[in-house]
Amino acid sequence: MFFEGAEKKVEIVVSKGMGNLRELGQGYWAEVVSACEATILSKISNQYCDAYLLSESSLFVWDHYLLMLTCGQTRLVRSVCKMIDDFKAENLESLIFQRKNEYRAKEQHSSFLEDVETLKSKVDGRAMRFGKIHSHHNLIFHLSKKYAAESDDKTTEMLMYDISAETGKFLTAEGNSVERVRDFFCLDKVLPGFEIDDFVFKPYGYSLNAIKDDKYYTIHVTPQEGCPYISFETNIHITNEKQGILKHFLEVLKPASFDVIAFNGSATQFDFGANYSRRTASREKLSIGYNVEFGYYFKEDPQIEKPFYF
Amino acid sequence: MFFEGAEKKVEIVVSKGMGNLRELGQGYWAEVVSACEATILSKISNQYCDAYLLSESSLFVWDHYLLMLTCGQTRLVRSVCKMIDDFKAENLESLIFQRKNEYRAKEQHSSFLEDVETLKSKVDGRAMRFGKIHSHHNLIFHLSKKYAAESDDKTTEMLMYDISAETGKFLTAEGNSVERVRDFFCLDKVLPGFEIDDFVFKPYGYSLNAIKDDKYYTIHVTPQEGCPYISFETNIHITNEKQGILKHFLEVLKPASFDVIAFNGSATQFDFGANYSRRTASREKLSIGYNVEFGYYFKEDPQIEKPFYF
Repeated sequence: MFFEGAEKKVEIVVSKGMGNLRELGQGYWAEVVSACEATILSKISNQYCDAYLLSESSLFVWDHYLLMLTCGQTRLVRSVCKMIDDFKAENLESLIFQRKNEYRAKEQHSSFLEDVETLKSKVDGRAMRFGKIHSHHNLIFHLSKKYAAESDDKTTEMLMYDISAETGKFLTAEGNSVERVRDFFCLDKVLPGFEIDDFVFKPYGYSLNAIKDDKYYTIHVTPQEGCPYISFETNIHITNEKQGILKHFLEVLKPASFDVIAFNGSATQFDFGANYSRRTASREKLSIGYNVEFGYYFKEDPQIEKPFYF
Repeated sequence: MFFEGAEKKVEIVVSKGMGNLRELGQGYWAEVVSACEATILSKISNQYCDAYLLSESSLFVWDHYLLMLTCGQTRLVRSVCKMIDDFKAENLESLIFQRKNEYRAKEQHSSFLEDVETLKSKVDGRAMRFGKIHSHHNLIFHLSKKYAAESDDKTTEMLMYDISAETGKFLTAEGNSVERVRDFFCLDKVLPGFEIDDFVFKPYGYSLNAIKDDKYYTIHVTPQEGCPYISFETNIHITNEKQGILKHFLEVLKPASFDVIAFNGSATQFDFGANYSRRTASREKLSIGYNVEFGYYFKEDPQIEKPFYF
């Protein structure tokens, strides 16, 4: 059964004058999530953040900014349009909308460039592609409004493709429990002290939100053969000392390839070991202050594969 | 200006009892071409073959088999359906329909799997993918009817991406003539003695059909920045001694990456030089007798690129 794991993503920062986003309440966020044809499954909160686990990925709401990720055939651009209308364009300090190369782009309701046209009917912005058009890439639209991202506002995404057969088998096992999947990822070992909210989907799939003070991480797993995809995203500062967090996922999942996208972090300078080579790398200092890096890595494999039969 | 260079392709072999395909005449082939929303630009012929240059790629018709390639947003599956209806399924000895990873799959009228459903409403067949779902790949549907391709029935395709800036500049120059482009490719040097029919499109693009006895080659060029793509296809037997033909295109175009797809030939055993590494390779002996190989190669590039701005 095919499932499009690749997430669309939006990050929005609003002006302090607009009031506290968290105070809009779960009822409001359920409407935002419904606009893209997803639903809220559960919520965890701490002093800084409300983290909603969705039927298709995640929504994190802080006092004055939010992050929303949705996979499958969700129409995230509709949620974004609703928020622009509700928040008013003049209250947006920053808006970054991202998509990536999808497995089956034709099955999406809109293309990235169509989404950009929709967004440009409401706000001014710039669109660009990191990575090759015919290979792994990340598409970014951001407001052209003046904004100066703080240098400690860092995000790192790792998107993993073609997990090992053994991993796929474990993650598609019938009757998997959240405890079993959590243990498999050894999350306590590499990311201790986080409050976790996670869910095992039927027949396949696993989603996790985790928060600790103002830090978050989120994992989304599409394990099935033919379209395996696992994403990890965090605002933990992945420095050279902490690159072990990314390497941990490579050790557990053994993907044949992966992308790293970093906002004010590195996607090109870590050493992912002798197994992985870098295929492409892109870097740009955006006019809104973020230094964005993109790297696509793969495992060299001299083996000749059999085709995949539909 | 975006243009989808990647071609859809069909090869059909009909039973000798059906009569000679060439005798159906240009009027009939114009209808077949029109079914996918393309037109015939010109024609060359010899004792074996009629080679039609199309507004979107090429059609070659031999006595009992044909090859049709169409790029852009053409609906090749409609031409295939028309031919199945006209020729009758029982007269088809072999039918192979191919698509590849497209630059903008969302802008196509149908996906490969939708085309397969359309074809399966008329004939039985199998569908498969050579290469990774998230990277360069080739999608093949073939009749499941018993067929035994002859071992000297060989086809080699080379699909080239990200041609060098210098090449792109030459190929997008205003007022290019067919002579100038032909000279640029030095075709007489590597492929002497062919009769050539070629066309320079406005504002960009170049197509070429060439025939010599029962051999053909065809070249299609989409040179514009943002979506560069050049394809070469031939039924010349590309043996180790003749791999220089493929290398010639690499020397002239200097693509950052390319795919080779070979039916009863090699896509994995040639030495493309120190500049190019193989990323993936697939191989399968199809039940219809063809040994199919797919290889995706790229030039290692330690440089960090700038993003592409839309």
